[in-house]
Amino acid sequence: MDTPEVLAWRDGCIEALDQTALPHQVRVLRIGTVDALVDAIVRLAVRGAPLLGAAGALGVALAVRQGDREGWDDARLDAEIRRIAAARPTAVNLRREVAAVAARLPAGSAAVEAAALAVLDTADAVSRRISARGAAYLRDACGPGRLRIHTHCNTGALACLGWGTALGVIRALHAGGALSHVIVDETRPLLQGARLTCWELGQLGIEHQLACDGAGPFLISRGLADAVVVGADRVAANGDVANKIGTYGLALAARRAGIPFVVAAPESTIDEATPSGASIPLELRADEEITVPAAPPGTKALNFAFDITPAELVTALITEERLILPNEQWLTRPQP
Amino acid sequence: MDTPEVLAWRDGCIEALDQTALPHQVRVLRIGTVDALVDAIVRLAVRGAPLLGAAGALGVALAVRQGDREGWDDARLDAEIRRIAAARPTAVNLRREVAAVAARLPAGSAAVEAAALAVLDTADAVSRRISARGAAYLRDACGPGRLRIHTHCNTGALACLGWGTALGVIRALHAGGALSHVIVDETRPLLQGARLTCWELGQLGIEHQLACDGAGPFLISRGLADAVVVGADRVAANGDVANKIGTYGLALAARRAGIPFVVAAPESTIDEATPSGASIPLELRADEEITVPAAPPGTKALNFAFDITPAELVTALITEERLILPNEQWLTRPQP
Repeated sequence: MDTPEVLAWRDGCIEALDQTALPHQVRVLRIGTVDALVDAIVRLAVRGAPLLGAAGALGVALAVRQGDREGWDDARLDAEIRRIAAARPTAVNLRREVAAVAARLPAGSAAVEAAALAVLDTADAVSRRISARGAAYLRDACGPGRLRIHTHCNTGALACLGWGTALGVIRALHAGGALSHVIVDETRPLLQGARLTCWELGQLGIEHQLACDGAGPFLISRGLADAVVVGADRVAANGDVANKIGTYGLALAARRAGIPFVVAAPESTIDEATPSGASIPLELRADEEITVPAAPPGTKALNFAFDITPAELVTALITEERLILPNEQWLTRPQP
Repeated sequence: MDTPEVLAWRDGCIEALDQTALPHQVRVLRIGTVDALVDAIVRLAVRGAPLLGAAGALGVALAVRQGDREGWDDARLDAEIRRIAAARPTAVNLRREVAAVAARLPAGSAAVEAAALAVLDTADAVSRRISARGAAYLRDACGPGRLRIHTHCNTGALACLGWGTALGVIRALHAGGALSHVIVDETRPLLQGARLTCWELGQLGIEHQLACDGAGPFLISRGLADAVVVGADRVAANGDVANKIGTYGLALAARRAGIPFVVAAPESTIDEATPSGASIPLELRADEEITVPAAPPGTKALNFAFDITPAELVTALITEERLILPNEQWLTRPQP
């Protein structure tokens, strides 16, 4: 892609593509403080579960640099790092990568930066393995012919570095001549599908059509997709999947239509410590995100950013290590 | 409501509240030609299946007046009336009421105007009967306690005159002290839920929360609604329901959650001539309605305005004449 890097570490600062400005503006944020990083994460300038993990990893290095400059004691450093980990509650990748890099603190700042950069370095390879495994699974599950894939939100390079998760699978199908086109949900309220996924697919020359979120289940019922492929923000130990609000309705429709509902996500998204979807904290965002500008002033809202799809509705979960069929095997039992 | 009439016939013109301007502006359109009426219907300034029926009825009277002024022959008058009937394809009410009023043409213009006004006159009584029957059904089906109702799009006075259909049922529950609150889908792309339903509920003092369309199925799965109540644009002879895009996902979720999925609509919405949902023409609107302004320029879309919910997922259909339980009786067999 002829655009700046999605996320990078440069001269002790984080550089990140501002995902709220796309597709109309390509703008790079230079983030030098924990405050600026938390702000970028909260307002979704930096978003996508795997990318949040990488940003959190760099955030620990950033906090160390800021602490050195400003003379923080250990307690302050710890508090600032915990603030990064808690910036958004649902994607487990954020707090997991923050914790992994923070574990290197006793080894000194060089070790912390090396650990953070290692998270970025592996992301590309991880995404390509997910992409290839997912494409192979779908060609097997759906049979010959070019596939029509329905997807939700944004799960490409912008969300994950590398090829992405669900969008990486789509890209691998395309690369293998096995893709017809993609149906993209707009993904209200922040329209990551309309803004980001359509932009990425356009850059890749992949045919696509945009649809309103409410249309997704119906389009599936009309036979307009061969499979639904989405990412995940957290997968519980029993296989329940937290993903962007709007995912659950697609899973219901896919089940009724008899097509595969496939989740593509790195192993780091699987949270063995969370027994089921009922225990996954779901971010409830500000009312104004959906009430402004259309609704009458003062309208109250119920603005969940994520929903839970029960494992029972998930046909396959694709990671860089495994193909997991939640209804045929225990999620926690690795494949031989 | 302290606002102008939703639809009226005044001095040989149609006056209609411009529903694209609400809730921020209360603006009345004065419509004096068939062109202006068709334009108002196409751009959804005048919308809602029962209201489209009433507007179509007045449209025949309007065409007669315009024809008198401009010296149209019978063929031209007939063509203009057919243009009104075809302005939007899905709601059967429009072409049905146009045909009913046009049948009075041989009796002269006074008879045509009287027939058109009679359509408006009965709308209020019809909506109150639907409202009362629907509220009684829900109190019976859901048991005691104040109900939490999930609804989609706009089905109140703006869509129907009088109390409305689904929103009329909600209003009747509220009037009877049997309503807790309403969850309102925003209803993309034109946001009739956010703009119109929230506005009407606010005017009526009924507690409500706005949600994105993609959230609806999940909120239902979390037990946040006791019933889903929606309107209809056409009901086929087998009980399949065409309604605003986004309805089908709610029906799937309601079935899985084990709560009633109730359709409230006048008898004029039932189309015995359409055997099933597969034969209902579904309006496909312009791409730009959903691609602008968020998606990259040139993005293609799949912008169905309506979807089909199979009768199998409909718990009850409430009309001014009947309570129909599609899964327990033939839709076409009236109750004794």
